[in-house]
Amino acid sequence: MLLCDVGNTSYHFYKEGKTYKKSVELFDASSIDEEVLFICVNPHVIGLLNGFENWTNLDKFIDMGQYYDTMGIDRIVACEAIFNGIIIDAGSALTVDVVKKGVFKGGFIYPGSKAMQKSYANISSKLDYSFNFECDLDIMPKNSQDAISYGYLKTLQSEIMHHNMDIYLTGGDAKKFAKVFPQAKVDEMLVFNGMKKIINSHKELIC
Amino acid sequence: MLLCDVGNTSYHFYKEGKTYKKSVELFDASSIDEEVLFICVNPHVIGLLNGFENWTNLDKFIDMGQYYDTMGIDRIVACEAIFNGIIIDAGSALTVDVVKKGVFKGGFIYPGSKAMQKSYANISSKLDYSFNFECDLDIMPKNSQDAISYGYLKTLQSEIMHHNMDIYLTGGDAKKFAKVFPQAKVDEMLVFNGMKKIINSHKELIC
Repeated sequence: MLLCDVGNTSYHFYKEGKTYKKSVELFDASSIDEEVLFICVNPHVIGLLNGFENWTNLDKFIDMGQYYDTMGIDRIVACEAIFNGIIIDAGSALTVDVVKKGVFKGGFIYPGSKAMQKSYANISSKLDYSFNFECDLDIMPKNSQDAISYGYLKTLQSEIMHHNMDIYLTGGDAKKFAKVFPQAKVDEMLVFNGMKKIINSHKELIC
Repeated sequence: MLLCDVGNTSYHFYKEGKTYKKSVELFDASSIDEEVLFICVNPHVIGLLNGFENWTNLDKFIDMGQYYDTMGIDRIVACEAIFNGIIIDAGSALTVDVVKKGVFKGGFIYPGSKAMQKSYANISSKLDYSFNFECDLDIMPKNSQDAISYGYLKTLQSEIMHHNMDIYLTGGDAKKFAKVFPQAKVDEMLVFNGMKKIINSHKELIC
């Protein structure tokens, strides 16, 4: 059985502990014969995949009552993966979600590092630096690069530490942010773990 | 005597408690006959103003040793205005500077609200909202507009409150941010107060 997390730019597959990606633009979903259980943030691709009998959308097995309408399915499935904790999914956007005793308590959205860097550069060419993830966030900065790095990273760190919960880090930039949250569990499989958990609790319907 | 804080887009004048602005592009500095004490962030305009005998740049009366090279003169002069506290200057960028016992301890730079809003909108049209400054920052959000508002405002609030200092709010967006920092002193004259303090302590050289 194949798992697939479809984003806006790629199909992210999981099989027996290994993952690989295919471009949304180039990949032909009909080329796969085996059973695929998927989630997808892209309504257009969902419509396409609904046309294939071997592709099953897992969203119908999730109790959506505790989440909100416009919340991405990947965030929801990551929340399903844990019982207690705060999840940071660091991608083009950085989403932060709180789960207590298996219940989603809410979350917020922060710009991902590329978007934020562009934001500083657009304000002034004097702020056009890449972020220094090694910046000492215990010292107030006295140079421009650290001043924007602290502005991006320390504000996020202060808010997240304030919750005093276990931190789970996932997404493409997880390893970078592990420098800012050294106590976090880096788990690049969090969404797939959430999918597996949903499958296991609905075995009689799915398999 | 006229005070003037020259930014990238406008000359901001102060005289006897009243302020007014003139566009950098359109204003002719030679049209003023009286004595002007100014600061200026724009090197091109500084060059121009150096040509007029009645325009005096205040930067030469500031002990620059405690600040850093690329720090804007407006930030420096705001720091000179206070003895203890954290200054939030909310403009196109939002600068945050810490002063303890009259000494600058460092500061950071965060995007202003317009730049940050654009940053979210560029990530996805689903995040193209204006910020809700009335958003309850004690509750984790469960809708997209509050999720970005919290992402922008609560992270900043958490970091600033963490310093446990008196907060001074200045800049064009000071009143908006007063909703996030209700305990802050809103002081739109902070930079001019800093200029007056510098003038008073160098009276024998300036007047």
